[in-house]
Amino acid sequence: MKNQFRLAVCQMMVVDNKDSNIVKAVSMIGNSAKNKADIVVLPEMFNCPYDNFKFMEYAERGEDSKTLKAISKAARESGVYVIAGSIPETEGDKLYNSSFIFDRNGEIIGLHRKMHLFDINIPEKITFKESDTLTAGNQVTTVDTEFCKIGVVICYDMRFPELFRLMTLKGAKLIGIPGAFNMITGPVHWKTLIRARAIDNQVFIVAASPARNEGLSYVAYGNSMVVDPWGDMLARAGEKEEIIYADINLSRVDEVRNELPLLKNRRTDIYDMIEK
Amino acid sequence: MKNQFRLAVCQMMVVDNKDSNIVKAVSMIGNSAKNKADIVVLPEMFNCPYDNFKFMEYAERGEDSKTLKAISKAARESGVYVIAGSIPETEGDKLYNSSFIFDRNGEIIGLHRKMHLFDINIPEKITFKESDTLTAGNQVTTVDTEFCKIGVVICYDMRFPELFRLMTLKGAKLIGIPGAFNMITGPVHWKTLIRARAIDNQVFIVAASPARNEGLSYVAYGNSMVVDPWGDMLARAGEKEEIIYADINLSRVDEVRNELPLLKNRRTDIYDMIEK
Repeated sequence: MKNQFRLAVCQMMVVDNKDSNIVKAVSMIGNSAKNKADIVVLPEMFNCPYDNFKFMEYAERGEDSKTLKAISKAARESGVYVIAGSIPETEGDKLYNSSFIFDRNGEIIGLHRKMHLFDINIPEKITFKESDTLTAGNQVTTVDTEFCKIGVVICYDMRFPELFRLMTLKGAKLIGIPGAFNMITGPVHWKTLIRARAIDNQVFIVAASPARNEGLSYVAYGNSMVVDPWGDMLARAGEKEEIIYADINLSRVDEVRNELPLLKNRRTDIYDMIEK
Repeated sequence: MKNQFRLAVCQMMVVDNKDSNIVKAVSMIGNSAKNKADIVVLPEMFNCPYDNFKFMEYAERGEDSKTLKAISKAARESGVYVIAGSIPETEGDKLYNSSFIFDRNGEIIGLHRKMHLFDINIPEKITFKESDTLTAGNQVTTVDTEFCKIGVVICYDMRFPELFRLMTLKGAKLIGIPGAFNMITGPVHWKTLIRARAIDNQVFIVAASPARNEGLSYVAYGNSMVVDPWGDMLARAGEKEEIIYADINLSRVDEVRNELPLLKNRRTDIYDMIEK
């Protein structure tokens, strides 16, 4: 397996127009590829404003999704992997917050449906209840690539250390987090949680947020970032639309795990994380 | 149960003289009590330099430890709880890194023996191997107090999210961490891990480090701190010897857990943390 690759994180300005969002995503994938990216990551709900009514309005079935067709074509034409942030996806009468992962041929190699639904109620600050519209996924997701196994979670999933440990124990060395923290939780929690997950599990983490669009009802924090297994920040966006890049050398995972053998030092005689 | 109390964190300058360290600890407990503290926290290895040879030289049996007798007396005379950092403790032919917890009468109400031993080897930066001399404890530790259940871990234990989840599930609302991170790991990991544990588990965390003593072979980072269940910093020391205080209102735990119901939202149908 190849040990080195370039990551691109597309901090898209998501707007209330699906076609515009698709055009933007395709264009950013193309630009990322021109800048020699191997893996491109899009943000959570990259084709849809973060709003329960919009989720229903914008939703597509996986089989005939024009969003997925466009991303597949972009991945194939540019010859890059794409962790396609997330989109509102319907199956039967269920609505999911779903991340599809594409290989360099535009084939879908993985699907993560957000498994922890975001219900927050801080009086006079922020209220959002995903469980009003969404159904939770039931699967810990890792996909195989030519570089390493990659884990994928979506936004609120990142608040559960259990999930990161399970992906790590399954062999993920890079974990992708399409996520849209807001202006209340973002400044206090976003960077700390991303860095802590990387430090605890000694993996690379790439977190992709939409750019900050003050015109929407839910304003994303931005600050997409790539963190290495020691917790060092390799790349970080501001609040505006931009693509950030990070050159990943997977040998850093082994190096950090040799220097500080956290995974070996777990006391699995006393406790353990189990998947049911 | 009382919902409010004052914490004092004694960031002691530990020196290579056991009696001086005991005198210092007793004096800082007295000062904390004068400033109306209810619970006083001492740092890891507060009576002994952080060094494998010193651990052996300074070690005491719990039954006849002059360090513990002095701390018990100080707790009783001042009428405060003391989470007595840690000391090198022998039992039979074993040596432990042990935290004794005292109530307001000076009675021992809990004992945590460090259960993850710190073995680090970063070439040309830092090498330390606790497992050369120490034996690991085998117990997840929580103690009952008049305020709430308190969890206790020691330093390297804090790198294991499993342990924090277990203490939280057992009902701990405050977790004490006597710890001595160093000048390599401290600046990058100490604050991030402490805040992440608080944010993930929505508990108060108090972390007590020795002050920075450049004269010892292992230089502690300092930066003792108290963090609330939202991750907000209530008090933080610098590098020098000092006592920091924080007024704790436990209703903040319930408030944060209502606003963002992380513990309820865990997907225990998919995964779980088990204690064996």
